[in-house]
Amino acid sequence: MNAKDIKPYKKNLDYSYTLGAFPTIELLKTRPQEVIALFVHPTFEVPEVMSRIAKEHHIRIEENEKLISKLSDKENVFVVGIFKKYADELEKDSSHLCLVEPSNMGNLGTIIRTTVAAGIHDIAIIGNGADIFNPKTVRASMGAVFRLRHKVYASYEDYMSKVSSRRAFAFMLTGKKQKTVLECDKPDVFTLIFGNEATGLPADYEEKAESIIIPQSDEVDSLNLTIAVGIGLFAFKNGLKILDEK
Amino acid sequence: MNAKDIKPYKKNLDYSYTLGAFPTIELLKTRPQEVIALFVHPTFEVPEVMSRIAKEHHIRIEENEKLISKLSDKENVFVVGIFKKYADELEKDSSHLCLVEPSNMGNLGTIIRTTVAAGIHDIAIIGNGADIFNPKTVRASMGAVFRLRHKVYASYEDYMSKVSSRRAFAFMLTGKKQKTVLECDKPDVFTLIFGNEATGLPADYEEKAESIIIPQSDEVDSLNLTIAVGIGLFAFKNGLKILDEK
Repeated sequence: MNAKDIKPYKKNLDYSYTLGAFPTIELLKTRPQEVIALFVHPTFEVPEVMSRIAKEHHIRIEENEKLISKLSDKENVFVVGIFKKYADELEKDSSHLCLVEPSNMGNLGTIIRTTVAAGIHDIAIIGNGADIFNPKTVRASMGAVFRLRHKVYASYEDYMSKVSSRRAFAFMLTGKKQKTVLECDKPDVFTLIFGNEATGLPADYEEKAESIIIPQSDEVDSLNLTIAVGIGLFAFKNGLKILDEK
Repeated sequence: MNAKDIKPYKKNLDYSYTLGAFPTIELLKTRPQEVIALFVHPTFEVPEVMSRIAKEHHIRIEENEKLISKLSDKENVFVVGIFKKYADELEKDSSHLCLVEPSNMGNLGTIIRTTVAAGIHDIAIIGNGADIFNPKTVRASMGAVFRLRHKVYASYEDYMSKVSSRRAFAFMLTGKKQKTVLECDKPDVFTLIFGNEATGLPADYEEKAESIIIPQSDEVDSLNLTIAVGIGLFAFKNGLKILDEK
């Protein structure tokens, strides 16, 4: 693929790109086989790890200031990694995060980073959600997106039919008889479900899963989605440990 | 204050403003005495709560499409609340959040919203931090900024000299003999300290406070600051409860 053929990102392209050294190194470390080419600014000093992996996988490194400025609207981008979009299957027996129609790419990237930090490596996206391969999502994830498997499903039922039987927890403020994330006992394998930033989860998720709430003051409308996911993952990954130690 | 005298926000102005109905209603509910005037778009239907509080506090509501478009760079703003900046003293005996040179206004707003959700109402900012009265911060906080006290201190020592004796916890990845947020026992009154988004806390906070870490996979560099604050507050506000119940 030549530099002149590479266009600013659109969802229907079959490639995307990382902007900046940190996510590009993450890409090279975790998905080298998907990398098409690296483009660097003439002043960029290519780090050893980058040139080593590029060499091992026969990835071309090309100086191209013009392409970099075309692809990045931010300053301070000195390297861009072009990669082929890939398809994952989730690991069917492990714990998952499930996002129903997440709408903001920056939030999605932050959630991905938080999910990997919590040791979860599978994200299901239900319905029309933010584009996980958009360079904004990739950048906000700091490249953590390459460390997990993700898959988009038409419906929650479709998702559930493809994975092992498990307890699933729907984070919602409107459930009728819901437990808090503290009271709830926590299985080894679980799916945590979160809704859209603005609208939350549709009411029928109360029937589809166990509805659950994060204790919070009624002085605020709700927690920001990224924070709710962070607390939810933290509680489920560590909550049992607290109880066990006592 | 006349509409023509109102300028787009700068830090040195002695007033600021809310953009949009939600934060403006929060402003009116919590700090009506600071409100100078409300400006609305001709098509905006003033909610009952807004007109009632405005009437009670003799706050003028004026239609002014031009001023609204001057103050907001986003679409979909139909009401702006101009308010006088105010000075708070922290409640010296309660638990606090302490932010050392936070740099991003959006993050600061999200952190404020999370802090109020956790039932904490005092934020100390050490050194040159993001401007808490900037309309971007106010908007990201969804108006929760008006529900807490905040104060800027020149140094951590200055802050500590003004509040009751307490245990303070420095969230940092580099501490030498640090506990995790799970292991650590949690006092009733505490201060949680978080550093800058990019640089974290200076190393000497390890001596100034008890250093503490949120368990996380080494697959990511660190948690996003807003997520770390969310988990930290959640663990400290609720952690003891988990242990007690067992």
